[in-house]
Amino acid sequence: MKIVVWNENWHETNGDPKVIGHYPDGIHTVIAEGLRERLGADHEVSTATLQEPEHGLTQERIDGTDVLLWWGHMAHDQVAPEVVERVHDAVLSGMGLIVLHSGHYSKIFQRITGTTNSLIWRNDGERELVWTVAPRHPIAQGIPNPIVIPAQEMYGEPFEIPTPDELIFISSFEGGEVFRGGATYERGKGRVFYFSPGDQEYPVYHQAEIRDVLTNAVHWVAPTLPRELATAPNAPRDWFLK
Amino acid sequence: MKIVVWNENWHETNGDPKVIGHYPDGIHTVIAEGLRERLGADHEVSTATLQEPEHGLTQERIDGTDVLLWWGHMAHDQVAPEVVERVHDAVLSGMGLIVLHSGHYSKIFQRITGTTNSLIWRNDGERELVWTVAPRHPIAQGIPNPIVIPAQEMYGEPFEIPTPDELIFISSFEGGEVFRGGATYERGKGRVFYFSPGDQEYPVYHQAEIRDVLTNAVHWVAPTLPRELATAPNAPRDWFLK
Amino acid sequence: MKIVVWNENWHETNGDPKVIGHYPDGIHTVIAEGLRERLGADHEVSTATLQEPEHGLTQERIDGTDVLLWWGHMAHDQVAPEVVERVHDAVLSGMGLIVLHSGHYSKIFQRITGTTNSLIWRNDGERELVWTVAPRHPIAQGIPNPIVIPAQEMYGEPFEIPTPDELIFISSFEGGEVFRGGATYERGKGRVFYFSPGDQEYPVYHQAEIRDVLTNAVHWVAPTLPRELATAPNAPRDWFLK
Amino acid sequence: MKIVVWNENWHETNGDPKVIGHYPDGIHTVIAEGLRERLGADHEVSTATLQEPEHGLTQERIDGTDVLLWWGHMAHDQVAPEVVERVHDAVLSGMGLIVLHSGHYSKIFQRITGTTNSLIWRNDGERELVWTVAPRHPIAQGIPNPIVIPAQEMYGEPFEIPTPDELIFISSFEGGEVFRGGATYERGKGRVFYFSPGDQEYPVYHQAEIRDVLTNAVHWVAPTLPRELATAPNAPRDWFLK
Repeated sequence: MKIVVWNENWHETNGDPKVIGHYPDGIHTVIAEGLRERLGADHEVSTATLQEPEHGLTQERIDGTDVLLWWGHMAHDQVAPEVVERVHDAVLSGMGLIVLHSGHYSKIFQRITGTTNSLIWRNDGERELVWTVAPRHPIAQGIPNPIVIPAQEMYGEPFEIPTPDELIFISSFEGGEVFRGGATYERGKGRVFYFSPGDQEYPVYHQAEIRDVLTNAVHWVAPTLPRELATAPNAPRDWFLK
Repeated sequence: MKIVVWNENWHETNGDPKVIGHYPDGIHTVIAEGLRERLGADHEVSTATLQEPEHGLTQERIDGTDVLLWWGHMAHDQVAPEVVERVHDAVLSGMGLIVLHSGHYSKIFQRITGTTNSLIWRNDGERELVWTVAPRHPIAQGIPNPIVIPAQEMYGEPFEIPTPDELIFISSFEGGEVFRGGATYERGKGRVFYFSPGDQEYPVYHQAEIRDVLTNAVHWVAPTLPRELATAPNAPRDWFLK
Repeated sequence: MKIVVWNENWHETNGDPKVIGHYPDGIHTVIAEGLRERLGADHEVSTATLQEPEHGLTQERIDGTDVLLWWGHMAHDQVAPEVVERVHDAVLSGMGLIVLHSGHYSKIFQRITGTTNSLIWRNDGERELVWTVAPRHPIAQGIPNPIVIPAQEMYGEPFEIPTPDELIFISSFEGGEVFRGGATYERGKGRVFYFSPGDQEYPVYHQAEIRDVLTNAVHWVAPTLPRELATAPNAPRDWFLK
Repeated sequence: MKIVVWNENWHETNGDPKVIGHYPDGIHTVIAEGLRERLGADHEVSTATLQEPEHGLTQERIDGTDVLLWWGHMAHDQVAPEVVERVHDAVLSGMGLIVLHSGHYSKIFQRITGTTNSLIWRNDGERELVWTVAPRHPIAQGIPNPIVIPAQEMYGEPFEIPTPDELIFISSFEGGEVFRGGATYERGKGRVFYFSPGDQEYPVYHQAEIRDVLTNAVHWVAPTLPRELATAPNAPRDWFLK
């Protein structure tokens, strides 16, 4: 498998000291490191950022990508429409997509869900507990219930998403809010997983259980069919006989 | 509509002082009172208990019931199998059913879900917050988000239910646990709503918002079609052409 | 309620004789007529077409529309992006949307589903049977099972849509194909219903049962909450305690 | 894996000539043969019938079974309640279950669904087409779309089941009826797949594509977690902090 971790890289290139403290080389490098550790040498994990030409997501590169992880927050508007379209077509053709934290507001995730994906939020360094509600799901295998994240931004309901195909995780926060933070969608031939933990101000992607979830998710969203965008074939009578 | 509030009436008849303090005439009378207040004179709300002949649920009475609310906890095993069967058939034929709190472990709800409905629990008088995740659903209309219940038993995930047809409410508790405490199921012609708040040791059914939820739910589960148990008709070719 | 029936009006303005035979004043007028007959004087049914300024869907008009029906086929590409955006925002804010037949490929429905909505097809004037699989759903009330449509274009699986929130109707065709032709989605505060019967070459919208389905659907997708586009409010600790 | 194919074996032991023509040693032997061919020597496929002591499903045997296939038709009432309970508990604990054809009316499937599972039917030797509506699902991998079954009993909608967790296949019949004949459910730790083709009067289980579906299904319902029936543990505050 070829996995690409994409990051808008805004906080890092704008010199946000908290973020740089946790992620001196960018949040993407730490996410990629966690995947490499777990996926081993058989799979190739690379990174791409907003600042690269075509945001590092040329048609050729996307064509060769099995799973794309997407982290964005401040720069959703700077993502070129044609890149969004390209990623969307790739998902519909079978590429796996994992949308992380404030990527809920990314153009690509809005294209996937068809909704605003709005929520309530508060950045107060609260403990987040991530509860498994689908213990049999492959993404939940080996994950402690709950995951305890010492400090995180709060994301709360109502989370304006379509009813997930499968709801895997529900988070709670010290203030009492709850959030459907682990949810799957199928779109065309592609699988999509949204996972909410991972605010830039906290070292969430250094945490082993979070890396385990992402690794499970990479396996789960990975393509199983030849990649192909659906067309609308004309079908004569009895076409299926022969 | 004819609405029947059923209660096993175990705590009350066994002299549990906390329960009698909140519910001197039984938890069913307070639930019924809340519904009567809101439904008005057009609808008839009555009660039934385990201790009555046939648990107060004769075939004739069930046949005339539009919506049944079910509260049970200690005496699930004392409910006669033929009454469970009768209620189940009524649901499949179109009667609405609302299962309350520890009714998750009732025989009738296990027949509806096909699962154990197991959960984790702790009775520590914690604040429960009931969050709406389906703001457009009729059961959520006019309900504050969240409902704040000052003290409750904790019910937590994993809650071993089938994926709900619609998930309406998710609760959180002071200890950090979450619970899918408001969930709908359709079975045959009948609608079912499970709602978790309502432990016997706390005055939950005196609370206005809880009464509002139950009233909304009565309207939502109420039958809309003539009551009828499905059969398996033989259908000759072209039967639908008159 | 204010209902607007929108039609791209391409076949009619391009002089397609079959279409004009069935729909001399445009397919929209016949759909509107069926709704007016059933909805009565309390509701206002009007029409809009692609050829009008802003396709007849100015911001003001959309703001005042409760339910929009959408028929399109040949001219999806001619619909202005800003009108698509406007309709999409209206749906997310609570406006009901009913997408008809080849509207499956419209930009607005692709924005709703996040998929291509591709299918297989054949225009051979085959009998279509529309089977109800959700007999309790409000959209199915009073609808014969099956609806028999004497002649129709075939639309067949695989239909590349997300799993519907509720699957109401499945069609079969003389050639043996099947199609999930009646499906609901909720997006934000809005409800959406897709209904596949209605090819321009057949008098489908003159048929009473089809008009009944559309009327039921208008009631079902109609808004129940004040219209409002979700934002992402910051929520201080304990904000819900007054 | 250990796979057990269960058959009520009624038609065969009652000397039904059509059935014995296709299945001289019982329908279970042919189903088992198809699985053995495809699963190879690493997995053990055995059979059990109603006529054996405890219907061949002792507690010990069930405890050692990973996947159970269930074929029944005339003798649902003869299945002992304690065996139904045992199989149900095993499913909730993680055993996979595949319910075949007229097994829709078996006690075990009614326990799983909580519904009557009623349908319409006609035995007229019609061609059945089995259409894939979830092409990405593991059960659909390598399966032609549609499967053409030359002659079969018709099963039609309305099929009174709960909304499936995943709808994989929809069948159509020469008479025009449709049927949701391939559907999955999760119950507790166990996965369940219902697959409708397979009437005793036609050689359906000799057909390669049907055997392929069943083999895929065996893999899909197979347990992935240690088998365990859920309990309701009391959870002290902060129990998750070690």
